[in-house]
Amino acid sequence: ASLSSRSMASKTPVGFIGLGNMGTPMAKNLLKNGYPIIATDVFPESRKELQDTGAQVVDSPADVAEKADRIITMLPSSPNVIEVYTGPNGILKKVKKGTLLIDSSTIDPAVSREMALAAEKMGAVFMDAPVSGGVGAASLAKLTFMVGGVEEEYQAAQELLTCMGANVVYCGQVGTGQAAKICNNMLLAIGMIGTAETMNLGIRLGLDPKLLAKILNMSSGRCWSSDTYNPVPGVMEGVPSANNYQGGFGTTLMAKDLGLAQNTATNTKTPIPLGSLAHQIFRVMCSRGYANKDFSSVFQFLREEEGQ
Amino acid sequence: ASLSSRSMASKTPVGFIGLGNMGTPMAKNLLKNGYPIIATDVFPESRKELQDTGAQVVDSPADVAEKADRIITMLPSSPNVIEVYTGPNGILKKVKKGTLLIDSSTIDPAVSREMALAAEKMGAVFMDAPVSGGVGAASLAKLTFMVGGVEEEYQAAQELLTCMGANVVYCGQVGTGQAAKICNNMLLAIGMIGTAETMNLGIRLGLDPKLLAKILNMSSGRCWSSDTYNPVPGVMEGVPSANNYQGGFGTTLMAKDLGLAQNTATNTKTPIPLGSLAHQIFRVMCSRGYANKDFSSVFQFLREEEGQ
Amino acid sequence: ASLSSRSMASKTPVGFIGLGNMGTPMAKNLLKNGYPIIATDVFPESRKELQDTGAQVVDSPADVAEKADRIITMLPSSPNVIEVYTGPNGILKKVKKGTLLIDSSTIDPAVSREMALAAEKMGAVFMDAPVSGGVGAASLAKLTFMVGGVEEEYQAAQELLTCMGANVVYCGQVGTGQAAKICNNMLLAIGMIGTAETMNLGIRLGLDPKLLAKILNMSSGRCWSSDTYNPVPGVMEGVPSANNYQGGFGTTLMAKDLGLAQNTATNTKTPIPLGSLAHQIFRVMCSRGYANKDFSSVFQFLREEEGQ
Amino acid sequence: ASLSSRSMASKTPVGFIGLGNMGTPMAKNLLKNGYPIIATDVFPESRKELQDTGAQVVDSPADVAEKADRIITMLPSSPNVIEVYTGPNGILKKVKKGTLLIDSSTIDPAVSREMALAAEKMGAVFMDAPVSGGVGAASLAKLTFMVGGVEEEYQAAQELLTCMGANVVYCGQVGTGQAAKICNNMLLAIGMIGTAETMNLGIRLGLDPKLLAKILNMSSGRCWSSDTYNPVPGVMEGVPSANNYQGGFGTTLMAKDLGLAQNTATNTKTPIPLGSLAHQIFRVMCSRGYANKDFSSVFQFLREEEGQ
Repeated sequence: ASLSSRSMASKTPVGFIGLGNMGTPMAKNLLKNGYPIIATDVFPESRKELQDTGAQVVDSPADVAEKADRIITMLPSSPNVIEVYTGPNGILKKVKKGTLLIDSSTIDPAVSREMALAAEKMGAVFMDAPVSGGVGAASLAKLTFMVGGVEEEYQAAQELLTCMGANVVYCGQVGTGQAAKICNNMLLAIGMIGTAETMNLGIRLGLDPKLLAKILNMSSGRCWSSDTYNPVPGVMEGVPSANNYQGGFGTTLMAKDLGLAQNTATNTKTPIPLGSLAHQIFRVMCSRGYANKDFSSVFQFLREEEGQ
Repeated sequence: ASLSSRSMASKTPVGFIGLGNMGTPMAKNLLKNGYPIIATDVFPESRKELQDTGAQVVDSPADVAEKADRIITMLPSSPNVIEVYTGPNGILKKVKKGTLLIDSSTIDPAVSREMALAAEKMGAVFMDAPVSGGVGAASLAKLTFMVGGVEEEYQAAQELLTCMGANVVYCGQVGTGQAAKICNNMLLAIGMIGTAETMNLGIRLGLDPKLLAKILNMSSGRCWSSDTYNPVPGVMEGVPSANNYQGGFGTTLMAKDLGLAQNTATNTKTPIPLGSLAHQIFRVMCSRGYANKDFSSVFQFLREEEGQ
Repeated sequence: ASLSSRSMASKTPVGFIGLGNMGTPMAKNLLKNGYPIIATDVFPESRKELQDTGAQVVDSPADVAEKADRIITMLPSSPNVIEVYTGPNGILKKVKKGTLLIDSSTIDPAVSREMALAAEKMGAVFMDAPVSGGVGAASLAKLTFMVGGVEEEYQAAQELLTCMGANVVYCGQVGTGQAAKICNNMLLAIGMIGTAETMNLGIRLGLDPKLLAKILNMSSGRCWSSDTYNPVPGVMEGVPSANNYQGGFGTTLMAKDLGLAQNTATNTKTPIPLGSLAHQIFRVMCSRGYANKDFSSVFQFLREEEGQ
Repeated sequence: ASLSSRSMASKTPVGFIGLGNMGTPMAKNLLKNGYPIIATDVFPESRKELQDTGAQVVDSPADVAEKADRIITMLPSSPNVIEVYTGPNGILKKVKKGTLLIDSSTIDPAVSREMALAAEKMGAVFMDAPVSGGVGAASLAKLTFMVGGVEEEYQAAQELLTCMGANVVYCGQVGTGQAAKICNNMLLAIGMIGTAETMNLGIRLGLDPKLLAKILNMSSGRCWSSDTYNPVPGVMEGVPSANNYQGGFGTTLMAKDLGLAQNTATNTKTPIPLGSLAHQIFRVMCSRGYANKDFSSVFQFLREEEGQ
C-alpha cells in the first residue's frame, strides 16, 4: 500500500545524489518538470551549482533519504554506489519504507543485485536504470534509460525517467538494465575497432574512404560506427572524427565499460574473445595519450604508418 | 579503336569460365539477356548442364579466348585464377587484342594486379569484379559487383554485369574491387562474432534475446548481424539461425575471405587485431564441425555451456 | 608478545579447514610432523577420512578457531574463503587474539587483503600462501608456497608450510602470494598455448615433432611447456600428453586462475592482451569437452584438421 | 658424380651474395677458414668492404654462379631471394650443373620450395639454412643454422656452415629450415609478450620485479624471455632492457618474422590465435616509435600508466 501511494504521489520531493557532468543536467530536468529536488554530492561546488537553480541541498545521502521517498543516484563506479547506499552516511541508514531507489550509474550488475537485496531488507525498492547518451543528451532530456527491477515499480520509475530521457526501456529483473547497457557498449566497441581496422586496410589497398564507407553501408559490413559515427576524418560531418576526436565518448569511459563487460563475462564463464581484445586495445590506448579523446580515435591509433 | 568497337558491340559472344554454384546461374542470366555464351569448366557435368541451356562449350580457357572478346571468370581461389589466365591452356595463350577480361572470383588483390599486368602485355584489359550475395542472389540476378580496373572500360563491363546483378559499384584501379569485397567481409565477420558474444553474454545475464536485439538495434550496438541476420535462434525468421544454420554463407568461405584479409594486411603492414582474431575463430570452427554451417553458427560455437 | 609466544610454541594444535583433494594430504603431512590437527569441512565424508588418521574433527570454522591459534584454510574459491572467515559460523566469530591464519586457497588478492583487514580488527594475523603443484606434490610434501603477509610472521608460517612443501617463498605484503601464483599461471597458460600453436604449425610445415621440440628447447623459443610438459603426444614420456591428457592440471582450473588474472588486471587497469586471449581460449575449451582434461590438451583442440 | 666431387673439393671458391649486417661477417668467417670468396651485393660500399678483406667482387649473382659451385645467399626478404635466383641477372641464368645453393635468408618456406624446384630444373641443388643469432653471433661464428634440403647434400652444406656457426641442425626436406626458424621466433614472440604482461601485472600487484622473475624461473612460468632476456629494466644485466632497449633484435624484424608465420599458417589453414595477436601487437608497436628498439621493449609499450 505504501508503495503505490508513493508512486502515485507525483511532484513530491525527489532525491538526487551525484551531481557530476551527467547528474547535474538530469537533476535540472526534474526541476524543470516541477519536482522539488533534495540533492547532495561530495563536491561543494557541484552542490552550490544545483542549489542556485532551486534545489535544496543536504549534507549526505542519509539526509536525502530522510526527506525524499524517491531517490535517483548517478555515480562514477561500483565503489561509489556501495558507499552511497551502504556506507556510514548512506541512503540505507535512514531510508523510509517504500522508498523507490533508482540508480542510473553504470556499474556491475552484481553490485546492483546486492544493493537491491540490501534495500529490500530495509523495506525499500531498488532499480537499476543506466543511461546511454552523453552530456548533450542529458541536457536535452534525450537520454535512453535501460531499467531493471520489479515490474510493478516500473511505472513509478518511468514517470521520473521520462523527464530526463526520450526512451525508457524495461529490461527485466534487477541488474538487467546494467546488462543491456554493458552488452550494447561491448558490441559498440567491437564495431568501432572493426570499422577502424577495415577503413584503414581499405585505404591502404587504394580505396577512397568515402567510397568504402558507402559500400560498407549498403552491404553486410554496415554498423552504427560505419554509418553514423564513422571514425575516419573526412567521411562524415558532425562527428568527433571531424573535430580531431574532441567531445563524444572518451576512451577511458569505454575502457571502464569494457572492464565491466569483462568482469561479468568472467564471473558467468562466458567467452567474449572479441570483447576481451577490444577491452585490451582501449586499455592500451588510455596509456598512450588517447584517454580523453573520443573512442573513435582508435582509427588514429591503428592507422599511423611505420617510420612516422 | 578496337576496344571501343568491342565494348559497343553488344550481343556478340561472351566467354564464361568457371561453372560452379555461382558461375552457372550467372552464365544463365547472360543467356537470358540474349548473349551467346562460349563456356568451359574443368568438370564435364558442369559443362553439360550449361550446354543443355544453349551455351556453346569448348575444351579450355584458351579456346574460349579464341572465340570471345569479352570473358568472365568465376573461380574458387587465387591458384585457379593464375592457372586459367596464365597456365599452358590459359586465356592469355590465345587472347585477342582488346579483349575485356572480367574476373568475379574472390582472390588476393595482388593476384588481380598481376593478372592485369599479364593481360596488358597481350593487349587485353583485365578488371576484377568480385560479388557479394550468394547462390540465391546469383540466380535472381541480384548480386552486387565491386569493380576495379581502368575507368574507361567500366561502362563495357557494367553492360554485362547488370545482367547478373542489381548493384555494380566502381571502386577504382585494378584490385580495388577485391579490396572492397575483402574489407566488407572482414567487418561482417567481426560484427557477427561480436553480435554472437554480446547476445550470449546478455542471455546469461538474464536478458530476453528478442528484447536485447531490439535494444541493440535502436542503439549504438546496431549492425547488420544484429538487425538483419541475427545469429540467435528465435530472434528473427528467414535467416540461417532460424533453420539450424543451414544455407547462407558457410564458415569455410568466411575463413577463406578472412585469410585473404589477413594476407593483404600482413603484406601492407596494416594492423587488424580484431580481423585477425576473427580469422582464427572461424578457422578453429572449421575443424570443429562448423565448416559447412552458416557463419552465424559462431553463436552456437560460443554459447555452449560447460559440462554440456 | 602474544604473537611471538604463539609462533614459538610448536606442536600445539593446528586448525585445518577445507579437506578436499589438496587439503586432505596437506593436513596429513602436518599430522605426520607431529602437529595435533583440529579440522573441519562441509562434507562429512571428508571429515571422517581425516578423523580416521588421527585428527580431531569439529563442526565449524568458528569451532576450529576456539581450539587452535594457528589455522590453515584450503578452499576452492573466493566466496568460500569469505564464508569461512567472515560467515555466521566463520573463523572470525571466535578467533583468539594473536591467532595466525594462513590461507592456501587460490583467490583474488583483493579478497586476501579484505580478509587480512577483517582479521586485524579481531587482533589476528592473516597471510595468503597459495600453492603450486598438484595432488601428487601435496601428498609428497613437495608443494611450493608463495606467501604474502607481515614479514615478522613469516617465520611462524614457514614452520608449518615446510611440513607440506619443498619450497616456501616470501613474496611481500598480504596478497602478493596470490599475485605471484596468478602471474605464474598466466604466463604458464600463454606458454602452453603458444607451444601448442607452434608445434602444430611446425608439424603441418613438415617438421618432425621431436626434432622441433629439440630445436625450440636449444633456442629462444624454449619454455617450461616445450621442455618439461610438451603438449604433443609422442614427444615426451610421463606427461599428460603421453596419457591422453589424463591427470595433470585440468582446463577448468586453468580457466579459473585466468579469470582471477583477468579480474586483477581489469581492476588495476593493466593490459594483458595475450593473457586475456588465453583466458578466452581455455574458457571455450571448457564448453567443448576439455574441461576435465589436462590443460595441455589445447594442442588437441587446435590441431584437429578441417573435415575430420 | 659431379655432386660428390664438388662437395668433397673443399677450399675451392665459395660464392656469397648479400653483404649486409649479417652477410659481411659471415663471408669474412669463410675467408678466415681459407675459402676464396666470390661475392656481390647491390650496394657498392658493401662490395668494397669485403673486397678490402680479400674477397673477389663481381657484378651480379649470375657472375657469381659462373665462378663458384657453392653459393651462399643472405638477403632481407622473399622478393630479394626471388630476384637473386630467378631474375634477369640471377644465379640460375648461369648456374653450373651440380652447384650447391644455400639460402640463409629468412623467408616464406613456400618460396624456398619454389627456388628448389627452379634450381633442380637447372641441375643444381637448393637448401634453405636460415640462422638464429644476431650480428654478434655472426661475427663470432656462433650462429645456429636450421637446414632444409636433400639429406645427401647436408654434409656438403655443413662443411661451410660450421665455419660460420656453432650449431647446424638438419630439419628435413626443403623449407623445413625456414619452418623451424619461423616456429621458434613465433614462440619467442609469444613468450616475450607474455613475460612483459606478466611482469607488469605482478609489479602493479605489489611484487618486486627481481623476486617475481626468480619465482617464475623456478616455476612453470619459466621461459627464455623470463630467465635469459628479461624485458624489465633492472632485473638482468647485459640484455637490451638494461640498455634502454638498444641493440638486440629489432621490433621490425620480429614483426617481419611473425608476418611469415602468419602467412604460412593462413596458407596451411592452421589456427595460431596467440601468434596472430603477437603479430598484431608488434605491428602496432612499429608505428608507435618502437620499430628500431629491441622487441623486449613490448614491456615498455604495455607498462606505461594512464595519464602519464
